[in-house]
Amino acid sequence: MEEPNTQTTETKVIAPRPKITTARLKSLIAKKDGKSIQKLFVKIPDIDIAEAANTLEPTELIFIFRCVESKYTADFFDELDQTAKENLVKAMTDKELVTIVNTQAADDVTDTVGEMPANLASKVLKAADKDMRKDINYLLNYKENTAGSIMTTEYIELRDSLLVDDAIEKIRDQGKDAETIYTIFVRDDKRNFVGTVDLDDLIFAKKNQTLHDIMNQDVVSCLTSTDQEEVGQMFRRYDLNALAVLNDDRRLVGIITIDDAVDVMTAEATEDIEKLGALTPAETNDGYLKTSPEKMAWRCIPWLIILLVMGTLSSLVLSRFDEKIAAVPLLASFLPVLMDGGGNSGGQTTTLMVRGLALKEFGPKQFGKVLWKEFRTACLVGLIVGVFGLFWFVMEQYLGIVAVQIPVNGVKTTENVFLGNCWNFEFFNFTIITAAVTGSALALTIVVAKVIAVCLPLGVAALKKDPALMSEPLLTTVADVAALLIYFGLAEAFIIPFMERL
Amino acid sequence: MEEPNTQTTETKVIAPRPKITTARLKSLIAKKDGKSIQKLFVKIPDIDIAEAANTLEPTELIFIFRCVESKYTADFFDELDQTAKENLVKAMTDKELVTIVNTQAADDVTDTVGEMPANLASKVLKAADKDMRKDINYLLNYKENTAGSIMTTEYIELRDSLLVDDAIEKIRDQGKDAETIYTIFVRDDKRNFVGTVDLDDLIFAKKNQTLHDIMNQDVVSCLTSTDQEEVGQMFRRYDLNALAVLNDDRRLVGIITIDDAVDVMTAEATEDIEKLGALTPAETNDGYLKTSPEKMAWRCIPWLIILLVMGTLSSLVLSRFDEKIAAVPLLASFLPVLMDGGGNSGGQTTTLMVRGLALKEFGPKQFGKVLWKEFRTACLVGLIVGVFGLFWFVMEQYLGIVAVQIPVNGVKTTENVFLGNCWNFEFFNFTIITAAVTGSALALTIVVAKVIAVCLPLGVAALKKDPALMSEPLLTTVADVAALLIYFGLAEAFIIPFMERL
Repeated sequence: MEEPNTQTTETKVIAPRPKITTARLKSLIAKKDGKSIQKLFVKIPDIDIAEAANTLEPTELIFIFRCVESKYTADFFDELDQTAKENLVKAMTDKELVTIVNTQAADDVTDTVGEMPANLASKVLKAADKDMRKDINYLLNYKENTAGSIMTTEYIELRDSLLVDDAIEKIRDQGKDAETIYTIFVRDDKRNFVGTVDLDDLIFAKKNQTLHDIMNQDVVSCLTSTDQEEVGQMFRRYDLNALAVLNDDRRLVGIITIDDAVDVMTAEATEDIEKLGALTPAETNDGYLKTSPEKMAWRCIPWLIILLVMGTLSSLVLSRFDEKIAAVPLLASFLPVLMDGGGNSGGQTTTLMVRGLALKEFGPKQFGKVLWKEFRTACLVGLIVGVFGLFWFVMEQYLGIVAVQIPVNGVKTTENVFLGNCWNFEFFNFTIITAAVTGSALALTIVVAKVIAVCLPLGVAALKKDPALMSEPLLTTVADVAALLIYFGLAEAFIIPFMERL
Repeated sequence: MEEPNTQTTETKVIAPRPKITTARLKSLIAKKDGKSIQKLFVKIPDIDIAEAANTLEPTELIFIFRCVESKYTADFFDELDQTAKENLVKAMTDKELVTIVNTQAADDVTDTVGEMPANLASKVLKAADKDMRKDINYLLNYKENTAGSIMTTEYIELRDSLLVDDAIEKIRDQGKDAETIYTIFVRDDKRNFVGTVDLDDLIFAKKNQTLHDIMNQDVVSCLTSTDQEEVGQMFRRYDLNALAVLNDDRRLVGIITIDDAVDVMTAEATEDIEKLGALTPAETNDGYLKTSPEKMAWRCIPWLIILLVMGTLSSLVLSRFDEKIAAVPLLASFLPVLMDGGGNSGGQTTTLMVRGLALKEFGPKQFGKVLWKEFRTACLVGLIVGVFGLFWFVMEQYLGIVAVQIPVNGVKTTENVFLGNCWNFEFFNFTIITAAVTGSALALTIVVAKVIAVCLPLGVAALKKDPALMSEPLLTTVADVAALLIYFGLAEAFIIPFMERL
């Protein structure tokens, strides 16, 4: 368990408010000062208190629940971390549990129960009233990462023939349990979902209008089986506050609210970033500080091993050219720059592809268009970076940063004294040829790497798999082989014959 | 200009709706069928129509604006791309422009005007009424990427002493212009911002209650100068619908709504992903398909050149060891695997650091804790991957994937025939020593790379700069040098003496 991160509370919350720490909570509880604790809940957001309370003993936590009004404890319970929740459930009487469980949103209870050991989960389910238990069991049936698994069943659905005033009355009746009343879902008399009404439109409407008159008919909806990444995308694209979730018969069975969608979008962005960085995604969303080094290592190792095995291909290629390297050791000196150049430029394209696919800027169907654009980009990048490289590689040799070993006037020099040989004709030719070969290899590698970097993620996306699996390191490993083949191919054609003529 | 991406509309929107394409719009306009066009706006979300309309001629666009009710055109205009907007502004009469400009949200007009050439911007400002012009000028004054630049000035602010019924009446009066009425901002009689009231609490309140009785006092707020990344973080942490923006005197001057916050969160995630991939962030948010190859190349080249120059250090190190490579060419064969291993494992840590910092899971203050956790992780990862590497490198030599060149029984073998030499004692020793050196170098490199990968982003964050600038490729380049020094250091200590004894 870690100290709560108080950074956010300190620097970004402007209105002066009492600061909350674990120590302060502990001292208030020790003094049995229930009144002050109740006051904290008025002035401080639940999540800040929850972070400070996560490390309390179960008996201390129970004390908070006993002295604070129940309208605060539901949200507070939801913000605690899983360990604290489980400790509390263990320590609470069945009666206390009944209040906590039934004042919470069904989707939140479902998430909590889903991660609990069986004995605690059944204690929670026993405490749930009939409606809640039905909702939880219903929600538990949906596959992870689908719209069904993140939706809530607590929403307001009204008939389209209802008058505005009657609708407001119904909302007053039913609204307390709903997760949002800002979007009202409208069905016709055949129970088909036909539209939504925003609460503000309802408030501004004339009294003799029906919901049908004022509802939005251009609504989007998803199925229970829709992937949560697509749900996030729909919220972003259509600026939604809530999204209707339909079953296969096109009946409304749940809704997703914007706060849950924001969590999903954040989690999906994190997953993409981590996959791009060759990390196996985390199974639970505990955050960095709460993950043990063992778990973290386990997330790092699989890809490192896979990439090591794939790297064998580079070793194989390099080993076939080891005589060339022995003859022209300079070739080895430029290897890292060349391989990194290919990996980096391909990685840039991979990044653009994965993000573009995630944000649905393009799909596998646009393959031709994307490839053509990236090919033109690659040629430009290759040309400019290659020409820059040419000059740079000449300079490295003249400044003696890399050692040039050629026979000068019949004597093989092993060290290039600073500018000492610069007017020697053979030295001049050698530097130009090696720099030109390395620069051209760099340019070609950039083009090849970028083209591969378009094909891999889009190909994976066409197979309906996650394109982020084609991580930057994976691309680097593939680009390495291309770089080596191009480099030694050019070296064999131009540098080796030159050396032999000397 | 590109074809609209119809993917989203086709696959995720379930309710059957007329499909919209540029061709269909063009044909309706050619037939002057205003009625059908008006109908489209009832059934189809504005953004889908706007995407199809972006490629229309200005005269065709104007036709749409003339036949569609003005309550639809404001949102429609906002969803068009910048080029289409500018064409429209050019083509519209001043009177038409007045309607469009003044029915839009001030922050949207400000964004549009901010990107327009001066002559068009002044045409828009002339069309704006007094209030709108004041708002635009006010918003234009805030620095990019601050809360001030994304806030809107159209919100509802009420006195805390107001009765619930009077408040609802005021909302009915003022609400039409407000960007949201779901959160009401409350001030005391000294004009200090003291809390918020959610519209649902207002609807469920008793008639004799004042706003003060029902308002949330545990509200968070930000300053106009707060970075937009922090704004996104606050929405995520506190599940907000709207956030109050205060000036330095702690007076409310604007609000940020969740839909704008979602856009900011998406843009910030994209920027982090791109920086991690060594891309210069885009200046305008046009999306991949609308960016020209020249612009795209320009985003790729700076980091590639910087990394190429930094790679000189690797060349320098490698060049100093070229005699060792000539003596034991096998050393070169394992180079790519070793350097990639360091870069990849360091890149994993960079990814975790940049994302953790962006989500405020930890800050530079937790440096010691993060470093210690990552060090333990690195030791575990290094140990396991290093040991795996050892066996793998032995195998590569025995299978002849890499060529082993040692004097066997006095004759220097240049090719290792498949398993042919495996029972030779010197061959056995040589493979074990080289594999052990390479495996140990890999393990050490992983530890060093992961430690550097903690220090770079956290150090940059401590200097209040963007940690995502410490991209994975940058880390790779630094880790390369470490890998080479460790590898050749170990090779000099163990492999070279062994070779000399043969």
